Amino acid sequence: MASPEKSNCELPSAANEAEDAPGELERITRQPISTVLIIIAMQTEAIPLVHKFQLSEDTDGLFPKGVPWVRYHGKYKDLNINLVWAGKDSLFGVDSVGTVSASLVTYASIQALKPELVINAGTAGGFKAKGASIGDVYLASDVAFHDRRIPIPVFDQYGIGARRSFCTPNLLKEVNLKFGRLSTGDSLDMSPQDEGAILGNDAVIKDMEGAAIAYVADLLSVPTIFIKAVTDIIDGEKPTAEEFLQNLVAVTANLDQSVTQVIYFINGRCLSDL
Amino acid sequence: MASPEKSNCELPSAANEAEDAPGELERITRQPISTVLIIIAMQTEAIPLVHKFQLSEDTDGLFPKGVPWVRYHGKYKDLNINLVWAGKDSLFGVDSVGTVSASLVTYASIQALKPELVINAGTAGGFKAKGASIGDVYLASDVAFHDRRIPIPVFDQYGIGARRSFCTPNLLKEVNLKFGRLSTGDSLDMSPQDEGAILGNDAVIKDMEGAAIAYVADLLSVPTIFIKAVTDIIDGEKPTAEEFLQNLVAVTANLDQSVTQVIYFINGRCLSDL
Repeated sequence: MASPEKSNCELPSAANEAEDAPGELERITRQPISTVLIIIAMQTEAIPLVHKFQLSEDTDGLFPKGVPWVRYHGKYKDLNINLVWAGKDSLFGVDSVGTVSASLVTYASIQALKPELVINAGTAGGFKAKGASIGDVYLASDVAFHDRRIPIPVFDQYGIGARRSFCTPNLLKEVNLKFGRLSTGDSLDMSPQDEGAILGNDAVIKDMEGAAIAYVADLLSVPTIFIKAVTDIIDGEKPTAEEFLQNLVAVTANLDQSVTQVIYFINGRCLSDL
Repeated sequence: MASPEKSNCELPSAANEAEDAPGELERITRQPISTVLIIIAMQTEAIPLVHKFQLSEDTDGLFPKGVPWVRYHGKYKDLNINLVWAGKDSLFGVDSVGTVSASLVTYASIQALKPELVINAGTAGGFKAKGASIGDVYLASDVAFHDRRIPIPVFDQYGIGARRSFCTPNLLKEVNLKFGRLSTGDSLDMSPQDEGAILGNDAVIKDMEGAAIAYVADLLSVPTIFIKAVTDIIDGEKPTAEEFLQNLVAVTANLDQSVTQVIYFINGRCLSDL
């Protein structure tokens, strides 16, 4: 792992909210990243990272009463790490997966923590026809939705909601990640309509949160990257749910190793160094 | 229209956050509703109500920079009315429809405005086989999602996310509304998988926001009702998008008339009087 090189950063286009605030602009462009926000939907994905970075659970009531979101925080060298897990649904007791929960968690966490970078980490399905294998970890180049069909001109594009993720060429060179497009929908399975839209999005991986997190982070002008580990092959023989559950724990080890490498790389660097 | 009868209210089950705060409990149970929040996705649906109640656009920066949400506010007699329209998407310029935007708007508005009641008003598709006709206005008895298929035990029920809306038997008697189940998804069209799930939800109407708003309001323990006017017949001959656009303005007049009657009814009443 190369040492961080201290350089003057250029403002990334996504960090454009700083345009009206010269002090904030200065801080973002000239200083290393001080605060990252890691958004994770499932406890199984979150806990190894909590242990790895010795993060503490927040008891300050950062979020309003009633929401299940759990914030863990700590430091790695100079970097403030916030990991927010979407928590267990209070009615059903399962992880709060999907776009609605992810968008709320992202919104509330960005508002409360003002991170310079959001990292959405999680598991995904992969298409073997596009080169994905179980255990691969991807950095998403682009994200889009595949289950928001609104067949009215312009609304159709809003529904797809395609966005580029924050450009991190140095990170991609340094950390051993595959690179490809991510498509998001609220179902674990894939209907024929979903499949057509995923092909339309030219996606190699499929998750249940990414494009929603991108939407919120874009609204609030926070650069965001997506790290997704492949638990199941969508165009394979096995039923998705079975394969997902079978591989979840093992694949999560790969995911957490990659997120750890990404955190090591980010420490000491400013946004344009990524 | 009957005059509001001033009675001692009983605590609705949804307002259970007050359990730990006797002062708040007292306020909710003994006093008429002081603040309502109307959540609307489309400008066409919102503007007639803004004019009807002479609401003013908020310029206080209630919401963070970058979000397109627009708050209008004013009073009807003793009732503080907040109408929040989800606004035009900054990238595509179309109304910010769908569950992600609706959930964010609802969360941020409840946090900022602390309403005692949320009203989600909008248009919907209707099933003629279940008795719906163009122009009908429904009060939803229940809401659920039809496009969140997660075929893992318990996760499947979380995905469907069925919730009862706040029970308002007196409102239903007083205002001329039909009554039935609402199913929510992020597509204007309906895939065979959606159709199966909508039938599973026993829904008579279909929208793109309701169940997401119910999820958020439930997290934050705010009673919520859903008023939906039928713009298109899902099980009819015409393509949904065409029929929706053709009927949007005319049906919105019915919607706004019903919302107006509901506001008249709410004024002076407490939650358990509804």
